[in-house]
Amino acid sequence: MMSVVKGRLLGLGVGPGDPELITLKALRLLRAAPVVGYFVAKGKKGNAFGIIEAHLDQAQVRLPLVYPVTTEKLEPPLCYETIISDFYDTAAEQLAAHLDAGRDVAVICEGDPFFYGSYMYLHDRLATRYESEVVPGVCSMLGGAAVLGAPLVYRNQSLSVLSGVLPEEELRRRLADADAAVVMKLGRNFDKVRRVLVELGLERRALYVERATMANQRIVPLERVEPMASPYFSLIVVPGDKWQGGAGGE
Amino acid sequence: MMSVVKGRLLGLGVGPGDPELITLKALRLLRAAPVVGYFVAKGKKGNAFGIIEAHLDQAQVRLPLVYPVTTEKLEPPLCYETIISDFYDTAAEQLAAHLDAGRDVAVICEGDPFFYGSYMYLHDRLATRYESEVVPGVCSMLGGAAVLGAPLVYRNQSLSVLSGVLPEEELRRRLADADAAVVMKLGRNFDKVRRVLVELGLERRALYVERATMANQRIVPLERVEPMASPYFSLIVVPGDKWQGGAGGE
Repeated sequence: MMSVVKGRLLGLGVGPGDPELITLKALRLLRAAPVVGYFVAKGKKGNAFGIIEAHLDQAQVRLPLVYPVTTEKLEPPLCYETIISDFYDTAAEQLAAHLDAGRDVAVICEGDPFFYGSYMYLHDRLATRYESEVVPGVCSMLGGAAVLGAPLVYRNQSLSVLSGVLPEEELRRRLADADAAVVMKLGRNFDKVRRVLVELGLERRALYVERATMANQRIVPLERVEPMASPYFSLIVVPGDKWQGGAGGE
Repeated sequence: MMSVVKGRLLGLGVGPGDPELITLKALRLLRAAPVVGYFVAKGKKGNAFGIIEAHLDQAQVRLPLVYPVTTEKLEPPLCYETIISDFYDTAAEQLAAHLDAGRDVAVICEGDPFFYGSYMYLHDRLATRYESEVVPGVCSMLGGAAVLGAPLVYRNQSLSVLSGVLPEEELRRRLADADAAVVMKLGRNFDKVRRVLVELGLERRALYVERATMANQRIVPLERVEPMASPYFSLIVVPGDKWQGGAGGE
């Protein structure tokens, strides 16, 4: 019996939302992939899939990886952490079946695969068993800065990328210490994040955008955001102070 | 006399080095631009220009913006800060002449325009006078993580992006506080950065890459890097701890 050459695992960043913000490389590998995997919430089409759907042909296998839970409250003994970890195990085995059969699998990732992407959990489970390649993508934070017209970090400034899920204390400490910052994963954390920004006197510098570069992108002044209506795909950018010439060298 | 419609200023991220890591959008706008500006060191062709050169046709005006100084030592009264600030002023006026004549100008930027890019200094000088658009790009940090096969930040981890130019004390403080970190602008700062990583016990987690995604990319174990031979386009990635399931929720 001939041994089958195993397929390759590809993590493809497809950019922050605008379908034109995919790279030539991700597009080439996507079109050539016999199997296309993507994460998706129950009953949804998936943002990443929406970005690239037009590029697929009928022969390519679509492999949706459907999250068993999203943000709903779970009653004990149900535990989000265990459920989601089991889900990644199962998803990895679904991919492995294709890889073992010699089929390359491209997993598409909104933004960049290694920048808070769910692909990371598949990579950690599979990259030791199969050849893999990751194609970096334009991340949402840079998509956000671009549409806000906000240069993000100058010269030797430090950039802090923070999750809105962090406890208020830690958010405050890290934002107070940042030359420039981006707060991701706002959603229901928005009100807490805004409160901290106001406390630190950063509310004038902070810029807010929902679904940057997507068709339904929305830019709203920070003070006018309705806390409960802020979607998960929103972010706050606190740009670094502009450099006009002056102290500090390379 | 008819008034001329002013040209548009475009800041185009062309990605970290691999010419295939340009986005469809940057490529489209680049090809349509009558004038293409790019920063370059004296006597060099320019990294960003090298990435996109093959896409230009003869009719497009090339506008190199040649740095008057790079890293050489300057004798007083010469001052790097003043020279470089004057240079950006002059470069901005060169662009403005084209924009006033109604020609769109695309400034190409290695990586992303707003992520430590020189384009930011033109943007700050011109975006109030002319219509502008910035196309985000794949930044070097994500190109680096991809070729290193290193998932960068998980879940609610904080990412600290630091310049190797920072004073040793500040580097130590910020690295000690980071869940995940990227140190850019190594070059002659490499030895200092490695020393701090060793002090903090982070040297095992830290990964080093030169010219990520470029044809002459080089990945070397941190302990084997020759400090004086580390190029400016090198970076260190300290990936966040892998998440295997466990505490912490959204």
